[in-house]
Amino acid sequence: MNTVELITKKRDGGELSREEIRYLVKGFTEGSIPDYQMSAFLMAVYFQGMSREETVWLTQEMKVSGDMADLSRIPGLKIDKHSTGGVGDKTTLIIGPLAAACGVPVAKMSGRGLGFTGGTVDKLEAIPGFKTSLPEEEFFAQVEGCGISVIGQTAHIAPADKKIYALRDVTATVENLSLITSSIMSKKLASGSDGILLDVKCGSGAFMKSEEDARALAEMMVDIGRADGKKMMAMITDMSQPLGNAVGNALEVREAIEVLRGQGPADITELSVELAGRMVFMGGCASSPEEGIAKAGAALESGAGLAKFREFVSGQGGDPAVADDLSLLPLSGLSRTVTASRDGFIAGIDAMTIGLASQHTGAGRQTKEDSIDHGAGILLHHKCGDQIRAGEALMTLYSDKADKLDLAAAEAEKAVQIGDEAPALPPLIHAVIE
Amino acid sequence: MNTVELITKKRDGGELSREEIRYLVKGFTEGSIPDYQMSAFLMAVYFQGMSREETVWLTQEMKVSGDMADLSRIPGLKIDKHSTGGVGDKTTLIIGPLAAACGVPVAKMSGRGLGFTGGTVDKLEAIPGFKTSLPEEEFFAQVEGCGISVIGQTAHIAPADKKIYALRDVTATVENLSLITSSIMSKKLASGSDGILLDVKCGSGAFMKSEEDARALAEMMVDIGRADGKKMMAMITDMSQPLGNAVGNALEVREAIEVLRGQGPADITELSVELAGRMVFMGGCASSPEEGIAKAGAALESGAGLAKFREFVSGQGGDPAVADDLSLLPLSGLSRTVTASRDGFIAGIDAMTIGLASQHTGAGRQTKEDSIDHGAGILLHHKCGDQIRAGEALMTLYSDKADKLDLAAAEAEKAVQIGDEAPALPPLIHAVIE
Repeated sequence: MNTVELITKKRDGGELSREEIRYLVKGFTEGSIPDYQMSAFLMAVYFQGMSREETVWLTQEMKVSGDMADLSRIPGLKIDKHSTGGVGDKTTLIIGPLAAACGVPVAKMSGRGLGFTGGTVDKLEAIPGFKTSLPEEEFFAQVEGCGISVIGQTAHIAPADKKIYALRDVTATVENLSLITSSIMSKKLASGSDGILLDVKCGSGAFMKSEEDARALAEMMVDIGRADGKKMMAMITDMSQPLGNAVGNALEVREAIEVLRGQGPADITELSVELAGRMVFMGGCASSPEEGIAKAGAALESGAGLAKFREFVSGQGGDPAVADDLSLLPLSGLSRTVTASRDGFIAGIDAMTIGLASQHTGAGRQTKEDSIDHGAGILLHHKCGDQIRAGEALMTLYSDKADKLDLAAAEAEKAVQIGDEAPALPPLIHAVIE
Repeated sequence: MNTVELITKKRDGGELSREEIRYLVKGFTEGSIPDYQMSAFLMAVYFQGMSREETVWLTQEMKVSGDMADLSRIPGLKIDKHSTGGVGDKTTLIIGPLAAACGVPVAKMSGRGLGFTGGTVDKLEAIPGFKTSLPEEEFFAQVEGCGISVIGQTAHIAPADKKIYALRDVTATVENLSLITSSIMSKKLASGSDGILLDVKCGSGAFMKSEEDARALAEMMVDIGRADGKKMMAMITDMSQPLGNAVGNALEVREAIEVLRGQGPADITELSVELAGRMVFMGGCASSPEEGIAKAGAALESGAGLAKFREFVSGQGGDPAVADDLSLLPLSGLSRTVTASRDGFIAGIDAMTIGLASQHTGAGRQTKEDSIDHGAGILLHHKCGDQIRAGEALMTLYSDKADKLDLAAAEAEKAVQIGDEAPALPPLIHAVIE
């Protein structure tokens, strides 16, 4: 096979065979196909697209490019959850304990993350003593014992995706449904679960701005997952403003505990119960999504979820007392409050801008080498639709660096739009694909 | 400026400014922009095209990426000729002496070449003693003295083109009019002439298969050259079969001498006079193209062109006696004759296939490191339209290697199509753009 011929074939609108896609993915991962040929191929894909079959094959070849996690020794159906990413999304910290409390084993390998805040692993590390790196035996023992373990991804999962994504990022070839789908799904399919619940975000703070685009991505991912024999469901949920009130690592752990106590913000509470309930159903612990949601809601109300959280934290070396005393969590020493400039209704809180401001406080990384300030971030005091008065506090920013704080506060202030009338709010849950 | 943003702009159909194109060309040539970003950009250009202004700027930036030849100390208008490439095209060896005999100074720096035969420089080196590498002073003295000098390109001309072309070749981004135009014209515009006569080939043996495509390329090149202040003309000429009867380095020198003696094949003779005549007009030595063509024809008939050829060869250290004794030119020791399998008319001689067979005899290079066998090549005994009988000789192949000769003969035989009726032949000159 010849790489130039394959680039030409795609450029001219042809459909590649499984063998041809394997040649490209394997060659690029191993280094026999250089970056400049792969980037030309990716740009050709941007313009010509890929068929469903090509997308299935691309995902499969990327999936098998590295290690495959084996969770088969854990009894029961293992259900993973994946969010396409949003600001203030701490649902994993909540739905993990809720699903485990309902009997679904949760064995999750999570990433760190570049961006506005850390990934789930960074958030968990904000809990004093919490270990996100466990030997394999301890990881399995923890899942078998308390029903849930979340550790950092150590395995060499889908290296083809890592290498292709890095190239797409610098060659303007990110925005293609087949490439996005194969990138997300190759990692998820290699991570050993029996089913995957997708939370596809839409709105100004999400990669997919419109519900239509989010639905197209969700449907393609569900299709590709099912082609690999996985149970699949997807929710399309709102990311026009941050989810919940907290953005930042320890601040998000704090809010997750508040949700498990039944005292959290309405949006993140509702979404967590909806997601956890579907995991319960997919994991075979309820006969319908509705029954699963009812069970997850009951686990929240009874305190079973919070108890499972304590058990989970303690099992991984963390201090379970954080669940009862939020002051045990780190909080940066300096703070700045942003106030409303006028009377009115909050018409918008741009999630992307809040995310960027959060990164400026020190809550997120810009490069892999950056360290994270676990106590930094932003706490919103109001959300879209709230009526406010001039001078009223809109949010508080936390950081250890005074100069960063000023920059972040100036940035964050720009995120808030105040209007004269109560705005029409988008639904929290746009659609569910079952 | 940011490379990803520029790739995105082109990908989305935008028009780049001169500064943006300069940033890309300069950055890529100097190495600050990696090849994987340039190849993604080139593929975006393949799909979105470039405006006339973008093409002008791209050509200009590539032109100024290296040295610029200065021919201003030579009095008179210096007219260059460029052919887009074809099999058996030895016109430079003929029109240089003809134009010089009519008073147009010819100061040409030519390339070697990959492909079916060598470039002009390789052909000249088939003449015993001929030096294609002269110190600058000798080059100018030769032009001032006998009116013509042709040497190998030593200057660092348009390195941006060299680097971009190498990348296009391996990323399926060759076939774009703006990229082809800027590649050819950047080198030509940097080579110091006052005017350029283009010979754009069309037909099965040319890069442009149809007259329509060849015309579009010719018009764009003429436009881009004029935008740089050059006198420009273009001819669109036939390359559905090889030009003349000889393909190979010494074989082509032999045929060029035969043309200058007035004993050459009709097609190459006619085209040479048409090209040389237009050079005479463009160089200010005739008041119309027709007058120029008449002067070039007279120079051929009178033997002035052949005399100039002797002077030219002698001036660069070669043996001028080759003009009178063709046996002084090298000829490979082994030969093979291909004969007609049936009675009929020659309906086609595929130029591309003949070119490949010629390469197999040793007349051309496949990689820059290959050496050339000056005495190897193919001599056609018949051209399209000729009536032949079964067993009649169609062509003779020359090589020093018996095994290569068998391979080449088998290849060359496939090039010839024999039909029952006299075929309709395409015109030699399709169009002239003045």
